Amino acid sequence: MTDAARTDRVTLSAVAAEAGVSLSTISKVLNGRADVSPGTRAKVEQLIEQHGYTRRGAATQRSTLVEIVFHELESPWALELIQGAGTAARERGMSLVLTESGDRHSPGAGWIDGVLQRRPAGVILVVSDLAASHKEQLRSRGIPFVLIDPAGDPSPDVPSVGSANWSGGLAATRHLIELGHRRIAAITGPEDMMASRARLDGFRTAMHAANLEIDPALLAFGNFNVDGGRDAALRMLASDDPPTAVFAGSDLQAFGVLDAARTLGLHVPKDLSVVGYDDLPQASYSIPRLTTIHQPLRDMAEIAIRLVLEPEEDGPPARLDLATHLVVRDSTAPLPG
Amino acid sequence: MTDAARTDRVTLSAVAAEAGVSLSTISKVLNGRADVSPGTRAKVEQLIEQHGYTRRGAATQRSTLVEIVFHELESPWALELIQGAGTAARERGMSLVLTESGDRHSPGAGWIDGVLQRRPAGVILVVSDLAASHKEQLRSRGIPFVLIDPAGDPSPDVPSVGSANWSGGLAATRHLIELGHRRIAAITGPEDMMASRARLDGFRTAMHAANLEIDPALLAFGNFNVDGGRDAALRMLASDDPPTAVFAGSDLQAFGVLDAARTLGLHVPKDLSVVGYDDLPQASYSIPRLTTIHQPLRDMAEIAIRLVLEPEEDGPPARLDLATHLVVRDSTAPLPG
Repeated sequence: MTDAARTDRVTLSAVAAEAGVSLSTISKVLNGRADVSPGTRAKVEQLIEQHGYTRRGAATQRSTLVEIVFHELESPWALELIQGAGTAARERGMSLVLTESGDRHSPGAGWIDGVLQRRPAGVILVVSDLAASHKEQLRSRGIPFVLIDPAGDPSPDVPSVGSANWSGGLAATRHLIELGHRRIAAITGPEDMMASRARLDGFRTAMHAANLEIDPALLAFGNFNVDGGRDAALRMLASDDPPTAVFAGSDLQAFGVLDAARTLGLHVPKDLSVVGYDDLPQASYSIPRLTTIHQPLRDMAEIAIRLVLEPEEDGPPARLDLATHLVVRDSTAPLPG
Repeated sequence: MTDAARTDRVTLSAVAAEAGVSLSTISKVLNGRADVSPGTRAKVEQLIEQHGYTRRGAATQRSTLVEIVFHELESPWALELIQGAGTAARERGMSLVLTESGDRHSPGAGWIDGVLQRRPAGVILVVSDLAASHKEQLRSRGIPFVLIDPAGDPSPDVPSVGSANWSGGLAATRHLIELGHRRIAAITGPEDMMASRARLDGFRTAMHAANLEIDPALLAFGNFNVDGGRDAALRMLASDDPPTAVFAGSDLQAFGVLDAARTLGLHVPKDLSVVGYDDLPQASYSIPRLTTIHQPLRDMAEIAIRLVLEPEEDGPPARLDLATHLVVRDSTAPLPG
């Protein structure tokens, strides 16, 4: 037995004695097994945290699984992250476990038991944050984790990978202003997602810097899907004073704006300019091809895998924001006249 | 020890004696461990097969992993299958492991060792077939497997789930004929994929039944991606005698045909009708919205999960072909005149 393993055993024996349960029960709790009463489980978890126990020597029988957790898999966005994470995992001889949590903000209670049973080498979370108790449970089992593009405002103790949302919003809006547009609308994602707000703040800053007025009727929060963009655009474009350009917070929303324009008989880009956000593969073959902000989704996933499997020895948890950039295609044109 | 476990141990002891190795080496081979020489491994695999050994009692310590293997994850098609399989797995308390094999026809040698180490409760393969030795290795370890939409011609001893490719090709072509089109092109996937050929055969039958000639210049095999459709369509549409309608073997190919039409200044559907195949989510918001053949990809994945986790007790391995149907949208119109 190594020194580390001996120390672990001493700690766990102390936890068992204090909780008044056997070491086998402790082991069941550590491994997320179902056959422990909720009361015992809670007591053991609390003592594990109190003793600052962390499983060590994980490297000796290292799992070949790395887990990626999505709140939902509906978007083609998810496929980009899966591809990036899958490639990076495979290069390291690992396989990817895919979980859908069903909750936009943080994975549910059932999820954590599954992770503790599977004991992956690491967890990538595509959710906005993780409950404090879940962080503690992962930490005590020695399972490292990283958030990708957190939609919320992750605590500073959680390493995360995102992209330059604010700069993306700024670049998209500047492009429209340079084309001569003045009456510019912004459609973005849910108001409680930081990514939505950062993109919108970039939009505001570009508008203010150009001394352009922002009409509240031309701002919309919606969902990041096609219907989110379509619904907001239909309302704005059918009004008495419609915009001549729209910055959409996602490519799917931008496709919804294109769809709304077609419904109303407007030609893009002659009657309306549209900029998206993400640069999904279909942005390069949509009709018209979409001008958009490129977000390096695959790179973000690859970096998350690297951070989780090869963590830095010291220093604070990393927050990495990758650069975004404008890709000009056919959905934007100079304002006529 | 149960009777079954005792029988297993007797069989494995016999294999060990014949191979001249220890039971521990046999166990390493069974579990795909790397620390066995290739020669020993091959000898043990051969003896395991010869003795007809099958691991039993797997249900007592059942894995909570089910594995899905893709030859590539590039297509939005893959995301539909992942969603269907993920939902079905979650409903059964299982997690999905995702592997990309990189080979269109069957997964590579490295893959099988990974599976034997992970010992999933079942394997779903989105590849055309499995090497005989891999089938035997999975069988002897008691790991059930099912193929989805095999692009090849799977052996009858492998359960598989597909969809009615031939009927889909027939329905797509009939729709174009009923609109008055006579000069109809067909672009399909790689020539060595049975799904491509079945869709094309459905096309031929519909054309023959209507006494329409098939011009060999209007038939193309390509890849199932956007560029496969774009390249073939550019060639056909720029010819002296272009088609008035195209049946594309995938939605991505159909998007490529739309792109080619735009490049050449043709209006869809006024100048050219286009039918796709798959009914991906973006077919409902492309410009124009795509008339296509609906292939129930999510259902196919759900059924594959059910077949692999809840296998039929007796009867031959299942081959299930789910129905396809035509979805008419805006990319097809009557032939003018």
